[in-house]
Amino acid sequence: MNLLYAQSGGVTAVINATASAVIAAAREHPERIGTVFAARGGILGALAEDLIDTRALDEEDLARLARTPGGAFGSCRFDLPDEAANPRLYDRLFAVLAAHGIGGVLYNGGNGSMDLVVRLSAAARRRGYALVTVGVPKTVDNDIVGTDCCPGFGSAAKYLATSMREAGLDIASMAGRKGSVFVLEVMGRNTGWLAAATALAAGDDPDMPPHIVLVPEVPFIEEDFLARVRDVVERLGYCTVTVSEGIRGPDGIILMEKSHDEAGHVQLGGAGLAVARMINGRLGYKFHWAIPDYLQRAAAHWVSATDHAQAMALGRAAVAYVLDGRDGMMPAVRRLADEPYSWDVVPVGAAAIANLERSLPAGFIAADGLHVTAAARHYLQPLIEGELPVATVGGLPDHRPLRVPLTGKRLPPWEA
Amino acid sequence: MNLLYAQSGGVTAVINATASAVIAAAREHPERIGTVFAARGGILGALAEDLIDTRALDEEDLARLARTPGGAFGSCRFDLPDEAANPRLYDRLFAVLAAHGIGGVLYNGGNGSMDLVVRLSAAARRRGYALVTVGVPKTVDNDIVGTDCCPGFGSAAKYLATSMREAGLDIASMAGRKGSVFVLEVMGRNTGWLAAATALAAGDDPDMPPHIVLVPEVPFIEEDFLARVRDVVERLGYCTVTVSEGIRGPDGIILMEKSHDEAGHVQLGGAGLAVARMINGRLGYKFHWAIPDYLQRAAAHWVSATDHAQAMALGRAAVAYVLDGRDGMMPAVRRLADEPYSWDVVPVGAAAIANLERSLPAGFIAADGLHVTAAARHYLQPLIEGELPVATVGGLPDHRPLRVPLTGKRLPPWEA
Repeated sequence: MNLLYAQSGGVTAVINATASAVIAAAREHPERIGTVFAARGGILGALAEDLIDTRALDEEDLARLARTPGGAFGSCRFDLPDEAANPRLYDRLFAVLAAHGIGGVLYNGGNGSMDLVVRLSAAARRRGYALVTVGVPKTVDNDIVGTDCCPGFGSAAKYLATSMREAGLDIASMAGRKGSVFVLEVMGRNTGWLAAATALAAGDDPDMPPHIVLVPEVPFIEEDFLARVRDVVERLGYCTVTVSEGIRGPDGIILMEKSHDEAGHVQLGGAGLAVARMINGRLGYKFHWAIPDYLQRAAAHWVSATDHAQAMALGRAAVAYVLDGRDGMMPAVRRLADEPYSWDVVPVGAAAIANLERSLPAGFIAADGLHVTAAARHYLQPLIEGELPVATVGGLPDHRPLRVPLTGKRLPPWEA
Repeated sequence: MNLLYAQSGGVTAVINATASAVIAAAREHPERIGTVFAARGGILGALAEDLIDTRALDEEDLARLARTPGGAFGSCRFDLPDEAANPRLYDRLFAVLAAHGIGGVLYNGGNGSMDLVVRLSAAARRRGYALVTVGVPKTVDNDIVGTDCCPGFGSAAKYLATSMREAGLDIASMAGRKGSVFVLEVMGRNTGWLAAATALAAGDDPDMPPHIVLVPEVPFIEEDFLARVRDVVERLGYCTVTVSEGIRGPDGIILMEKSHDEAGHVQLGGAGLAVARMINGRLGYKFHWAIPDYLQRAAAHWVSATDHAQAMALGRAAVAYVLDGRDGMMPAVRRLADEPYSWDVVPVGAAAIANLERSLPAGFIAADGLHVTAAARHYLQPLIEGELPVATVGGLPDHRPLRVPLTGKRLPPWEA
């Protein structure tokens, strides 16, 4: 049988490590697995029959792929509808699978992607199509239920904690009597895992950046927050704040910069800018703010070796699950010990975790809601550990694009 | 004699490398140099007689200092007034110098700081105070006249070019028919050196990020810019743009996000946000934007080895200049050859360069004003080359604060 590998949703610094491991692991079973096809641009590419033939990648390509950020084969955001609502779409998908002899699908994504695993698995059973569908976790948000952590998170966490430590030293050197504030806005619409990770920069020293960590799990109370900012500035001359993009007020409405463009349209800005301007407006402190945006999930030059190893291990495990016929399962990370950190890979059912979302546990959030606890740091610490050498060309990471051909089409064009 | 070392203005990822080199070089001359004092918080610290005794730093501390971002002794923004306008201030400054036996001042800063070098040097001559004042260049803006490049720039340039390459791979993997845009706002109020440096990520491939580079040297023409964005999106499905924070319209007014807070006050946002929203509003493409802010000048985890070596060499040269009595001079980098890159250090007079600003030469800017030329890349390329190992603790760069004592005060408190 051949395999289909597809990337889904937002990409990470290590999703291609998983892809590389999937391809390498499949090659170890030439008696059972023929070609690994990669869907170009995610599941929409599969529907379009845009299938990349990964046999063109040699060992060196695979090694380089494993260290390249972004989704090398392309990704997309697409929720598979109910089969009853759109049987044509399912007909097409199975026609593509059949036309290319695909007996295993490995779907590399987050919470929503596990829903596709469940739907595809059920559809194959209904149709009597012999298919093993396996989910492979990835997300910088670390919000997939059933796994101790998610590939992509540890590297983004390491990048953001490093950034807060570095930027904190910068603003500290300029601290003066007038007070200054630095706000770092990080990803996390609904969960504060990435914001919490910046607390690793401070360790257990309350005077070290970040001095305040705001997460979506806690309603944002302006007065409490500003009082804390003032306290920190009066003690240190400056204050650093990590803000999850998704923090909300007590009314449940997401905090944002409301502003008007020249035509009078309301535009949405970021929570970081809103918080920074609030501080400036209410307390008068100078402010800087940073929004790393894609940089935080693409920083392959500074990945966590732990995260990278897990991304590879989960890719390899997913191939093993296909070979073992573990339909509808997802390999997950299980933590065996904190110190020294050890972990293994265990299967969890995609149906039990699809579309759920794991928030920060209450015990990870400080009582005042303005920082995280030692328990949070204890959990997070091993996930950012270890560095990997970076291959460079001319002072920049070597991310020359892979040259991979599409396999020949055997079906008429698809019209959605 | 003793020396006074002070950091001025915005800090960089390698300014402490210069500081470390100054201290180490001074120690090689125990017969002529006693103590290197570091002004705490820049020249304002000198006025306050807040002098750090760097003898407390051992070899290991100096090695760590050389890899720590920010200004380890503190910096400030302060322009020395005319002596005639404020003789009391000069009286105080020379009283501090005299009280601590200081015969050499090393002032580590940018264009404005060279003005202080000139003023202090002249004041010492007028007063008959035996002082050698030497400037030491640093700025991420790369805008100091008389030197081929400025310490701090190469590392920020490497960080930003790497970030554009990485984020470019991220957005490319999500590119679709609807079009998406990524805007990276970089530092540069008046000059486009840092923006230009991101072009190193593309090399000579017009399809690689960044597809457009906007610099303050070129008036921003909205229609030309939007036409180019549309062209790129129609060809590739996405477009990446680097924007200097200081780009201006044809009217010379800085482009910015004008918005209103709840009280109706006009607030200034960034050029990157303004450009991103313009694209969204006029062309309808989805957008992401990143503002690395301090992160770009503090990224000690990814410094340019070339930049770091130059920061050290200029610090060492500054000490040699003090010993040689080269009052009012600044060590500068002279480029000897492009390939293989070679350079040495030469003295330039601070008076000839103070308060000037070096813009991108016309030959570095593409004819259409929307990118930079091969000549620009040729100049920039060697400045970002080379990587240094990073000492880490728990997965983060080891930047434990230095414990350095203030020397005892010998003067009454200063009241400005």
